[in-house]
Amino acid sequence: MGNIFGEIFRVATFGESHGPAIGCVIDGCPAGLALEAADFAADMARRAPGNSTYASPRKEPDTVEILSGTFGGVTTGAPIALLIHNRDRRPDDYDNLARVLRPGHGDFTYMAKYGIRDHRGGGRASARETAARAAAGVVAKKILAQLKIEIAARVAAIGHIEIARGEDFAQNKAAAALIEDCMAAGDSIGSAIICEICGLPPGIGVPVFDKLSADLAKALMSIGGAAGIEFGAGFAAATRRASENNDGFIWQGGEICKTANNAGGIMAGISDGAKIRIKLGFKPPSSIAATQNTATTDGQNTEIAIKGRHDPVIAPRACVVAEAMAAIVLVNHIFRGLSDTMDKVKAAIANFPPYAKQ
Amino acid sequence: MGNIFGEIFRVATFGESHGPAIGCVIDGCPAGLALEAADFAADMARRAPGNSTYASPRKEPDTVEILSGTFGGVTTGAPIALLIHNRDRRPDDYDNLARVLRPGHGDFTYMAKYGIRDHRGGGRASARETAARAAAGVVAKKILAQLKIEIAARVAAIGHIEIARGEDFAQNKAAAALIEDCMAAGDSIGSAIICEICGLPPGIGVPVFDKLSADLAKALMSIGGAAGIEFGAGFAAATRRASENNDGFIWQGGEICKTANNAGGIMAGISDGAKIRIKLGFKPPSSIAATQNTATTDGQNTEIAIKGRHDPVIAPRACVVAEAMAAIVLVNHIFRGLSDTMDKVKAAIANFPPYAKQ
Amino acid sequence: MGNIFGEIFRVATFGESHGPAIGCVIDGCPAGLALEAADFAADMARRAPGNSTYASPRKEPDTVEILSGTFGGVTTGAPIALLIHNRDRRPDDYDNLARVLRPGHGDFTYMAKYGIRDHRGGGRASARETAARAAAGVVAKKILAQLKIEIAARVAAIGHIEIARGEDFAQNKAAAALIEDCMAAGDSIGSAIICEICGLPPGIGVPVFDKLSADLAKALMSIGGAAGIEFGAGFAAATRRASENNDGFIWQGGEICKTANNAGGIMAGISDGAKIRIKLGFKPPSSIAATQNTATTDGQNTEIAIKGRHDPVIAPRACVVAEAMAAIVLVNHIFRGLSDTMDKVKAAIANFPPYAKQ
Amino acid sequence: MGNIFGEIFRVATFGESHGPAIGCVIDGCPAGLALEAADFAADMARRAPGNSTYASPRKEPDTVEILSGTFGGVTTGAPIALLIHNRDRRPDDYDNLARVLRPGHGDFTYMAKYGIRDHRGGGRASARETAARAAAGVVAKKILAQLKIEIAARVAAIGHIEIARGEDFAQNKAAAALIEDCMAAGDSIGSAIICEICGLPPGIGVPVFDKLSADLAKALMSIGGAAGIEFGAGFAAATRRASENNDGFIWQGGEICKTANNAGGIMAGISDGAKIRIKLGFKPPSSIAATQNTATTDGQNTEIAIKGRHDPVIAPRACVVAEAMAAIVLVNHIFRGLSDTMDKVKAAIANFPPYAKQ
Repeated sequence: MGNIFGEIFRVATFGESHGPAIGCVIDGCPAGLALEAADFAADMARRAPGNSTYASPRKEPDTVEILSGTFGGVTTGAPIALLIHNRDRRPDDYDNLARVLRPGHGDFTYMAKYGIRDHRGGGRASARETAARAAAGVVAKKILAQLKIEIAARVAAIGHIEIARGEDFAQNKAAAALIEDCMAAGDSIGSAIICEICGLPPGIGVPVFDKLSADLAKALMSIGGAAGIEFGAGFAAATRRASENNDGFIWQGGEICKTANNAGGIMAGISDGAKIRIKLGFKPPSSIAATQNTATTDGQNTEIAIKGRHDPVIAPRACVVAEAMAAIVLVNHIFRGLSDTMDKVKAAIANFPPYAKQ
Repeated sequence: MGNIFGEIFRVATFGESHGPAIGCVIDGCPAGLALEAADFAADMARRAPGNSTYASPRKEPDTVEILSGTFGGVTTGAPIALLIHNRDRRPDDYDNLARVLRPGHGDFTYMAKYGIRDHRGGGRASARETAARAAAGVVAKKILAQLKIEIAARVAAIGHIEIARGEDFAQNKAAAALIEDCMAAGDSIGSAIICEICGLPPGIGVPVFDKLSADLAKALMSIGGAAGIEFGAGFAAATRRASENNDGFIWQGGEICKTANNAGGIMAGISDGAKIRIKLGFKPPSSIAATQNTATTDGQNTEIAIKGRHDPVIAPRACVVAEAMAAIVLVNHIFRGLSDTMDKVKAAIANFPPYAKQ
Repeated sequence: MGNIFGEIFRVATFGESHGPAIGCVIDGCPAGLALEAADFAADMARRAPGNSTYASPRKEPDTVEILSGTFGGVTTGAPIALLIHNRDRRPDDYDNLARVLRPGHGDFTYMAKYGIRDHRGGGRASARETAARAAAGVVAKKILAQLKIEIAARVAAIGHIEIARGEDFAQNKAAAALIEDCMAAGDSIGSAIICEICGLPPGIGVPVFDKLSADLAKALMSIGGAAGIEFGAGFAAATRRASENNDGFIWQGGEICKTANNAGGIMAGISDGAKIRIKLGFKPPSSIAATQNTATTDGQNTEIAIKGRHDPVIAPRACVVAEAMAAIVLVNHIFRGLSDTMDKVKAAIANFPPYAKQ
Repeated sequence: MGNIFGEIFRVATFGESHGPAIGCVIDGCPAGLALEAADFAADMARRAPGNSTYASPRKEPDTVEILSGTFGGVTTGAPIALLIHNRDRRPDDYDNLARVLRPGHGDFTYMAKYGIRDHRGGGRASARETAARAAAGVVAKKILAQLKIEIAARVAAIGHIEIARGEDFAQNKAAAALIEDCMAAGDSIGSAIICEICGLPPGIGVPVFDKLSADLAKALMSIGGAAGIEFGAGFAAATRRASENNDGFIWQGGEICKTANNAGGIMAGISDGAKIRIKLGFKPPSSIAATQNTATTDGQNTEIAIKGRHDPVIAPRACVVAEAMAAIVLVNHIFRGLSDTMDKVKAAIANFPPYAKQ
């Protein structure tokens, strides 16, 4: 349950870390979007393991196969099925985990919920699940690109080390040293990303329950390891006075502008046209090589040193996943907004292609 | 759009700040729950304005009328309509706002989205909307109470002043002084709450998109003014190593226990049986009496000093709303979990009352 | 559960036959639609009891009160709450039904499901529930009217007596005699309606599961007493050859036309621009004055002669309800279609009012 | 859009007739259900083409591959992805259809909606789409089998020829002769099926909009070619008096029984424990070899004789699809019913496995 996301542009994902394949079905993509397998390469490479000193050495080409929904390189409005085969499976790495509850992991909660779990590499709870999100995000971002909307996430912090805008965390000596120190110790480190959205027109979002901020919060907090999220000034706003925190308005050159952006581009749940700014904090990856005390499913206390191939830090590979989730939320809210007013509806119907009017 | 919340236990809310009434329709409440109008009094009073030195002086009795869904003081499974009349309406207080865009408010974004807005006291964007949430939350909390699950939110901070567990913010001299200082200056102050859930069994929640944490994040971030949210160790976890952050397991007295609770009671999106701990930060209320620069909808730059009756701080009245939203999420996840395994389904069917088997 | 209908334009209804009020909340209505209480009068009168020799004599003015969602007589995009008070309640008429299971009614199934029922006039299972549908339908039909789409339902048969297009069933001597004969015998009679939709452009609907025909079938079969539904040639098509049943195409005067309309205006789940034609059959109303054998909830076999005020035939008052349900489905499918193609999306965004672009 | 079905047990399907593969993702299947690839063979063979004189000669093994969601032959609660490769693709058969609008088909409406269509064998609109429904139905039926609920659909009529219960339509001389006559004439014939459900306990379903009958109507009317549906006495009830149509109740041997089943097992939208009986009528398949007049997308009137491999009648292969759709609806309604009463919820929680209580 809970593997389908979105209201109009909907994504159903499937697949376990060491099963034959993972993938997704996208329902509600408009017809007429150019889409081919090569479109996925760049984002899949950003997320793929094996591409960095500071990531799991598992080697997955993560080639995306389009099984349906396009004709002649263009989407048809039919559901788009995307398939990614798991090539570098090593389920035997996990034989010693069948009975052990890994600290920090979903092993215990999956057992409590389902009475059964696929222990091979975390099964469905593995970060490998996010490859399907990234693939779906490529389609969402292609739609947004046509509307001149851009999303970019970047590593904002490795542990206590902040990474400046435009800086590569791997080139930041303190950050690199921190990660290497953790790796040497068989440990891992927490991290944070900043995700920014530019070009979104004002008026996108929904009041009350489905606020744009609320839906983005759900989408981003659903990424494994997410521990906290802030919009705009975030928790800093919780310490301020309104006289310093309120974003005012001013007319300049015939256009209305905000005098500040503490709201982070969303006011009362609806975009205001300014840049949307979100910070997302991740706990350190739970799988570490160092020995930890823990318990088994059958009543024993034990020690575990986790084998397998794991990331020392979440943020670097999570950037593309965060972009994907944000993109899916934005596409949904844009589509939901098409019937916001009678004027919009009437203009849309009048814009139907001539063929459809006959 | 976006005024309906939940999957199985669903709440549709309606109503503007200065319209005749606000309320909600609850669909999916089980039959057999004792429910009468008096059940709402305590929580409605916690949220109501006019009950504190540090809250809006608007006087609303917030009496909840049950229009449907009960028979003989017990729910029947039919939708429960709850109605709260707006008694202390003063729409004329807002005449000067018809053309002015209040800084920090949804005036601009509502106009951008809908091309029209009910400017009287914020209309649908008013905090008055949360009275309907609180009413729905009473029903959700009554269900949880029968399952021995408790939710409690408390003020955690007023500006930079932290409020200890068990402490009344209004009795904290520094916090009270800070609020009073803001009120005297025609200003307002940011704040934070902590919401804790006890008694939830492990196994409640859903992996991947609808993680319990993700759904709680959406629910709580949908409360007006919310700027950030953390689960468990939250952003602090983003600075830690796994060796200090991982929650281990240990068998004690025949029961499995966690050795820490940095995860805040949710692992991989599913409850682990430990206390769920959430921190929610609020910006300062946007409506302040002090003069601010801003713009009008028709191209003028202007000044505004906002009249009307407003809160100097969000957290105190938001506690009951946060509890309500969390309760609605929990009821949904508990109900969704009833079909988690074939064993649960078969046992449930076997437990159908004899009458239904004939 | 199951009291909320629709995907984008959503309607939540509530209320029992002899409770204080019934009504609905409409979420997703576009802003900018003129709407006032007087708009509801005509359709509410068509559905109301007490207006015909051949309907229940219960006298309900069925005045609709708008509690929210409009400002200055125009919708704002906020949820529209509509309230209808039950004026002519006579719950005591039903005291003898607390333990008796009325033949043909939901008494037994409600007890099996919920273990409790509001026996006063059928409670939630009463046809009175449809007043809320009719009220919501008025809003949906106002939206469709602006798009030049018309829905009209008419009585097609009273028992075996067919009513011609344009004929008033009450003026058809055979039909009137049949109803009067049933009424005199303390009995009731089955009936049918035909619902037609004109002006719907081609291209509205969805393939596979949410076909326009499938969604209309659900909507109309959800009306109490519905026993069967046909689209276009319906069951007659099930006896034909394709050579006589296929609707061909032909270009005439620069427009593409169908050479027949056996499909009833829907091909492969999507509108083709021709008139949509639906036939809906209703069983005879279950509540009759004649004595029937039946059982009690506590193990007795008994006789019952049902008091209260009841209709001798469903079709006449169901026409407006069928129109309402069809209208809600159409509005949803039209809104869902606004993102069918990238061209539509891009044109819609370009059509956003200038204000929203700033 | 519209390719996802269900509320708790949800099915997302994908795939075109002549693309590389079709399939589905099932979200919400309980853990602990034995499931392996061989389970699909029987139902896939019932639906597959090429297995009968009276079906399309296209040869598809329709082997179902399980990509995810099981571990050791048992479902884990994770989404179940099912893949069926298209083996006998002949897209070139359809080259002459790129511009021609086939009579009775979705060609025109897909173009009107999407401005593009995959013309190869009907693309997404092909009956091949139903293979994914049948596969999902196998899983749903396995769940129902454990609850002792059985669904069986059978051919009820070929054109005007009725097929008796227990009779094989292919052995009915008149029916076989009718089909052969149509095939010889390059024509096709309408048909009907009857679908019956046994063993469903009373109390399953939902009042008002999501009546069990309404949801079944949507599910079955979403099958391509469906033209009409009846429940129980159906349209015959529309001609009867209540005194002959009402199902009464009687206590016999300590159990409550119905004295008739004109309601077809569903009263007021909720199952009453009696056999559910549904009749579904199909139009004749639109693709016929005989020459028909029609139009092209670019303004020409033309003739078409449809090549490719097509069925002369829908009912025989549709039985398993109808069973699948009905099964999915039932599983959803059973799962939705698990929280119908507080007693059910409390008993379910008390039945949670001991592990989950710790």
